[in-house]
Amino acid sequence: MSIEEILIEGSWQQSSASGSFRAQNPATGEWIEREFPVSTWADCDRALTASVAAGEELRVAPVDRIAGFLSAYADNIEARAEEITSLANAETALPVTPRLLAVELPRTTTQLRQAAAAAREGSWTQAVIDTKANIRSHYAPIGPVVVFGPNNFPLAFNAISGGDLASALAAGNPVIAKAHPLHPGTSRALAECAVAALEASGMPGASVQMIYHLGNEDGLRLVADPRVGASSFTGSRAAGLRLKAAADVAGKPIYLEMSSLNPIVFLPGALAERRGKLLVETADSGLAASGQFCTSPNLLFMIDSPEAEAFAAGLTKIYAERKPAPLLSEGGLHHLEKSVGHLVEAGATVLTGASAAPESSGFCYRNTVLRVSGATFLQHSAALQQEAFGNATTIVVARDLAELKATLRLLDGNLTGCIYSDSQGSDDPSYEEIASLLRPIVGRLLNDKMPTGVALSPAMHHGGPYPSTGHPGFTAVGIPRAMLRFAALHCYDNVRQHRLPAALRDQPPNPEMWRQVDGIWVQGIPQVSQARAKSE
Amino acid sequence: MSIEEILIEGSWQQSSASGSFRAQNPATGEWIEREFPVSTWADCDRALTASVAAGEELRVAPVDRIAGFLSAYADNIEARAEEITSLANAETALPVTPRLLAVELPRTTTQLRQAAAAAREGSWTQAVIDTKANIRSHYAPIGPVVVFGPNNFPLAFNAISGGDLASALAAGNPVIAKAHPLHPGTSRALAECAVAALEASGMPGASVQMIYHLGNEDGLRLVADPRVGASSFTGSRAAGLRLKAAADVAGKPIYLEMSSLNPIVFLPGALAERRGKLLVETADSGLAASGQFCTSPNLLFMIDSPEAEAFAAGLTKIYAERKPAPLLSEGGLHHLEKSVGHLVEAGATVLTGASAAPESSGFCYRNTVLRVSGATFLQHSAALQQEAFGNATTIVVARDLAELKATLRLLDGNLTGCIYSDSQGSDDPSYEEIASLLRPIVGRLLNDKMPTGVALSPAMHHGGPYPSTGHPGFTAVGIPRAMLRFAALHCYDNVRQHRLPAALRDQPPNPEMWRQVDGIWVQGIPQVSQARAKSE
Repeated sequence: MSIEEILIEGSWQQSSASGSFRAQNPATGEWIEREFPVSTWADCDRALTASVAAGEELRVAPVDRIAGFLSAYADNIEARAEEITSLANAETALPVTPRLLAVELPRTTTQLRQAAAAAREGSWTQAVIDTKANIRSHYAPIGPVVVFGPNNFPLAFNAISGGDLASALAAGNPVIAKAHPLHPGTSRALAECAVAALEASGMPGASVQMIYHLGNEDGLRLVADPRVGASSFTGSRAAGLRLKAAADVAGKPIYLEMSSLNPIVFLPGALAERRGKLLVETADSGLAASGQFCTSPNLLFMIDSPEAEAFAAGLTKIYAERKPAPLLSEGGLHHLEKSVGHLVEAGATVLTGASAAPESSGFCYRNTVLRVSGATFLQHSAALQQEAFGNATTIVVARDLAELKATLRLLDGNLTGCIYSDSQGSDDPSYEEIASLLRPIVGRLLNDKMPTGVALSPAMHHGGPYPSTGHPGFTAVGIPRAMLRFAALHCYDNVRQHRLPAALRDQPPNPEMWRQVDGIWVQGIPQVSQARAKSE
Repeated sequence: MSIEEILIEGSWQQSSASGSFRAQNPATGEWIEREFPVSTWADCDRALTASVAAGEELRVAPVDRIAGFLSAYADNIEARAEEITSLANAETALPVTPRLLAVELPRTTTQLRQAAAAAREGSWTQAVIDTKANIRSHYAPIGPVVVFGPNNFPLAFNAISGGDLASALAAGNPVIAKAHPLHPGTSRALAECAVAALEASGMPGASVQMIYHLGNEDGLRLVADPRVGASSFTGSRAAGLRLKAAADVAGKPIYLEMSSLNPIVFLPGALAERRGKLLVETADSGLAASGQFCTSPNLLFMIDSPEAEAFAAGLTKIYAERKPAPLLSEGGLHHLEKSVGHLVEAGATVLTGASAAPESSGFCYRNTVLRVSGATFLQHSAALQQEAFGNATTIVVARDLAELKATLRLLDGNLTGCIYSDSQGSDDPSYEEIASLLRPIVGRLLNDKMPTGVALSPAMHHGGPYPSTGHPGFTAVGIPRAMLRFAALHCYDNVRQHRLPAALRDQPPNPEMWRQVDGIWVQGIPQVSQARAKSE
């Protein structure tokens, strides 16, 4: 059987492979026929060289061309939606409906179209113009971007079609996608949609390139290569930290999303007021995609009380009753078994689950609820914060508010943190204290809402303090802000008008673009600057 | 003689010093009497603990208090302007007039007042509000900031009074200043102004703390400490890279300004049109403060021609005629001697200078012009890009445009890059080619203007690609953008109105603040959102 080709400079080319691999259907354990290459450095080197040339073209390309590509790419994905979601289903066991076809695919195309609109409109560059001093600056492309995609979103976070690719391209950079080896067939189909869109929109062939798999050492070399502008990675903390170290030494920006336990605090009033509703919300969120969301609620905090006991019993019952869904891989199953084992060693007790589910076909783990006292958490906070990626949730029951606060003080940086409180205000005093502890250690603070919904809003922040990410100032979701990860600040001092990029000339390139001109955010040119220009 | 005290938690306290040091007058070589402490980790630890508590207070303090402090601090510096500039003159040999009193001190107070205005007005937080989804986000304080100040601007970049302190505080963070040991008396006087302003404005005492000197290992430990939010450093590449490595491993943001050669390209038409004017501009800029600016023009590029020969001869004449000014320290003099030696070893020839100036008192080096061919630069580009910090300028004479372009392709990241061209357009075709090479490797691109003026404009960018700084997306000058270095992105998802920070409530905290509400940059609330809120 022949090995599939990689996408280099606009065409499918043979990989200088060191070996090959296949995907497995997590619902059945069956191997899927197609053989994909494990790339060597020679593949990376080819992609990098082509990417540099494409980057130079893109830097001066009209924004409409990039926007046109992103829109066409979205259209092409929609045109093959059934085929793509069926491939993704076979490789991930995520259900076609509603997850893949009604949620993740539309999310993917929406992101691409939002990125297209942002590129076309231009406000994302945050142009600041000082007409008096004739100093002008804006965010501009950073250079070739390497994207390492995760295992858990085969479409919306896929390196070849997800938010990082959309952001990087819309900011004017070519992308080298390192797809995740758990869903190569899906990635191939998406990349075909990209190639057709590249051709249709007249983009450089190397604007989007893709490899499937790569040895660890080559990955480290890739993020540190002088030809790279920046990299992004979504995945495990161990792999993320290795890539970070390599990029840091080379002085290359890298944006990482590495792990998060997403603590939820249920205040007493909320438990008393609507325990039944909260149980369903928690189970729906905690078991969504078998708990394999970056924002899955892994740690639930509450204060010891009859209501907390009833909540723990209720959650145990729901988790035990619901049929476990397959995990994404056999490796993931083993890793979850091991991680839950570590949590139990660290002092958590098992309320339900905590073993593989041999009665189910595929890579299933029993829905798991663990429980630990606040005192134990205080003693073993590091061990109890090891991520168990999958359908396992830990309830931390603190003796009182003081102990609850003490446990929260030991939390690492997280993507999200959430507080449930009652609607009548009885929880308000505790809310303030809890919120002031959570706020500095999370990117997104929620009220009365599970964190697994990550809206595609310009106000969204999908990021947070280390070690949930590598820098607390950048978000991976939310266009246009996510584009700033892939931008350098460019200033023009006393540069002649006709030599300026279109976005920084007195007359803006389009009437929609927001710029800050002489201290005023404006579409077009503010009257005060026009008046001054005339009077001088 | 007793050792001076350090500033901890609002008062002058004895240092747990490992030793002491004194400053030297660079104009005479004389030691200045006062004895200052070399701090140990115990001092850092005290400062950090106090800083965390101050940070918690500042996070909820009204912005007017922080703004009031910054304004009062500026007033206090002005009230002691003569004393402060006289101290700085004794410790740096920079002239009181015009440099210290008419330029650097006003720059310092202007920065503090700009920071005060930015804090008060609030637009720097880039609040984005999605009223429909009730998701809101903005940039918020990152936590205690450690600032390492450089030797070359005793006021405007001093860790206790410069742009980093102003930016960090205006963003709501307490600052631990590590002043530069070359000007401790100046730093002490400035810190006294800060203390008086802290007291007058009711700020936490530990909002601003200061130590004078620190062992290398303790510096590395400081930027990696879990209590730190972020650090900033301005200084040598060697020290910067050590601090970067320590901060990176700990996952702590650090912003570095590490070195820059600030290439200038003189196109043939410009040399033909106005050589005499360009010579004076170059000498004025290259010898300003004896060449000890971060943006000093160290590398001049031109194409071989009679005009280039005349320029080289002319610059040599001016450099030889002008009296050299003292360097900042004896160490700096030795370093410059060594660096120029390395450039000569790498193939540069000496047109004038290249030795200490024993006829001058103090730490003087002869104004130096070196020359190297494009061919030699191509062969030894790394060695010829070693920074010679001081009054030494290298002219690179390329055979033709192609060789000139080849040399530029080998340049490292720089803060600035500049192109001089004629006013009639004869240089325009070459301009495009040169600009496209310089643009991606510099932060600020200039036309027909020397880079040593770094205007305090919101459009300014004082930063650039690695290794001139650690990240190409951040600037150290230009408020409010410089404040973003010391901010984390905070999102609020479904958070109840009364629990939101004032800046994210429907009603903005002041009528001047710009926010992006439902896609529109606006002061106040956009009518469309009001209308929607009413209709829903």
